[in-house]
Amino acid sequence: MTYCVAIKVDAGLIFCSDSRTNAGVDQVSTYSKMYHFGITGDRQLVINSAGNLATTQSVIAKIRKDIKDGADVSLATVESIHDAADYVGEISIAIQEKHAQHNTNVSFEASFLLGGQIGTEPPAVMLIYPQGNHITSSDQTPYLQIGESKYGKPILDRILKPDTGLDTASLCALVSMDSTMKSNLTVGPPIELMTYATNSGVTQHSIFEADNQYLRELTKSWDRLIVEAFLQLPPVGFIPST
Amino acid sequence: MTYCVAIKVDAGLIFCSDSRTNAGVDQVSTYSKMYHFGITGDRQLVINSAGNLATTQSVIAKIRKDIKDGADVSLATVESIHDAADYVGEISIAIQEKHAQHNTNVSFEASFLLGGQIGTEPPAVMLIYPQGNHITSSDQTPYLQIGESKYGKPILDRILKPDTGLDTASLCALVSMDSTMKSNLTVGPPIELMTYATNSGVTQHSIFEADNQYLRELTKSWDRLIVEAFLQLPPVGFIPST
Repeated sequence: MTYCVAIKVDAGLIFCSDSRTNAGVDQVSTYSKMYHFGITGDRQLVINSAGNLATTQSVIAKIRKDIKDGADVSLATVESIHDAADYVGEISIAIQEKHAQHNTNVSFEASFLLGGQIGTEPPAVMLIYPQGNHITSSDQTPYLQIGESKYGKPILDRILKPDTGLDTASLCALVSMDSTMKSNLTVGPPIELMTYATNSGVTQHSIFEADNQYLRELTKSWDRLIVEAFLQLPPVGFIPST
Repeated sequence: MTYCVAIKVDAGLIFCSDSRTNAGVDQVSTYSKMYHFGITGDRQLVINSAGNLATTQSVIAKIRKDIKDGADVSLATVESIHDAADYVGEISIAIQEKHAQHNTNVSFEASFLLGGQIGTEPPAVMLIYPQGNHITSSDQTPYLQIGESKYGKPILDRILKPDTGLDTASLCALVSMDSTMKSNLTVGPPIELMTYATNSGVTQHSIFEADNQYLRELTKSWDRLIVEAFLQLPPVGFIPST
């Protein structure tokens, strides 16, 4: 399994991904799910991936090959994040269909988060479904998730607004990841965080290993703070039974 | 969809259920999923249900009929919570198989939480799977869930211990329900709470309607307290990029 979240606030974009892959409980590996494609002064693009590892690796390989070969359509040439999502969706569909020709019992599905800024267009994030179509975020829902998304959703709903700062949004992504790791064994470190400040033209990439001191302190603090918050709730007021 | 949670602590048992059922988004109804079977001085049993509404209603009807008819095996005669779970599991399987004879495209599956105390046996809770088999809780995991369980799981993991008091466990169940309702439209009020203090021989039943003042205050307080807790977290400490 996997958990990735992409956040779009006015101040910029945040991407956060775990690094655990598994095919059964005894075949667990560590793979980064964070990919960066940038042309200094022109565009910064980030992709997170979830789903069949063979599919996601093939998709990323094809994206890289198109850039290297100077293809007419590639992440180096598309004119908007929307076109970038179309392009990645088409590659994903083609690879899934190729694999499915020989085997219909296995799911070759993959999902992607894609975001960034191209030229002076506003930054955007997209969720690309296994079917190749995609959605973007909104002011009411300033984030997108792929993989094991439920455990980490409540904190995103409570904290994120369009005017949330990048540091707060980063922290929110990490807390969302922490809740997910606590509840699902197939989501695990290293945790990667990629931040992009609107119009900055530069991404900042951080990797938190399992023994990272900040991550451990964050987990411990959140545990304690949640319990303290819980203890401040109004005691249960029973109402008459029917 | 549905969300029900059953908690077993040393002090007793807590059951909490929502009341929304849906077959498509335009066929939404309100049905209680909380059932009580008690013989004063002898046993107190509670059942929560999730899944196909026709199946769960037929199972409850059969349980009631067996008690009324004085059947050899019924919730009035079983000698342990384990035997009660076996009995309910067998009824559930029989009803699912009956319906599936004529239609294999629809899921007739149902899950149940069953718990209580029989005579001087220790109280216990069981989760009965659609396959009719069942599991009980443990000191490490003093709760069981059916339905839409992921959103409300983190708070249960953080708060519940065997020595948690009944009031705190009730509050924890309501907060777990609140997180679930916030994230999933198909889980909704009225919220029912059934508490049983070990060896008391009496259950207490509370119903919180959508406009219940306590429930609204709880939701508002929890929203505020979570945000306050979040703001006390250590600020993101970026580590050097690779």
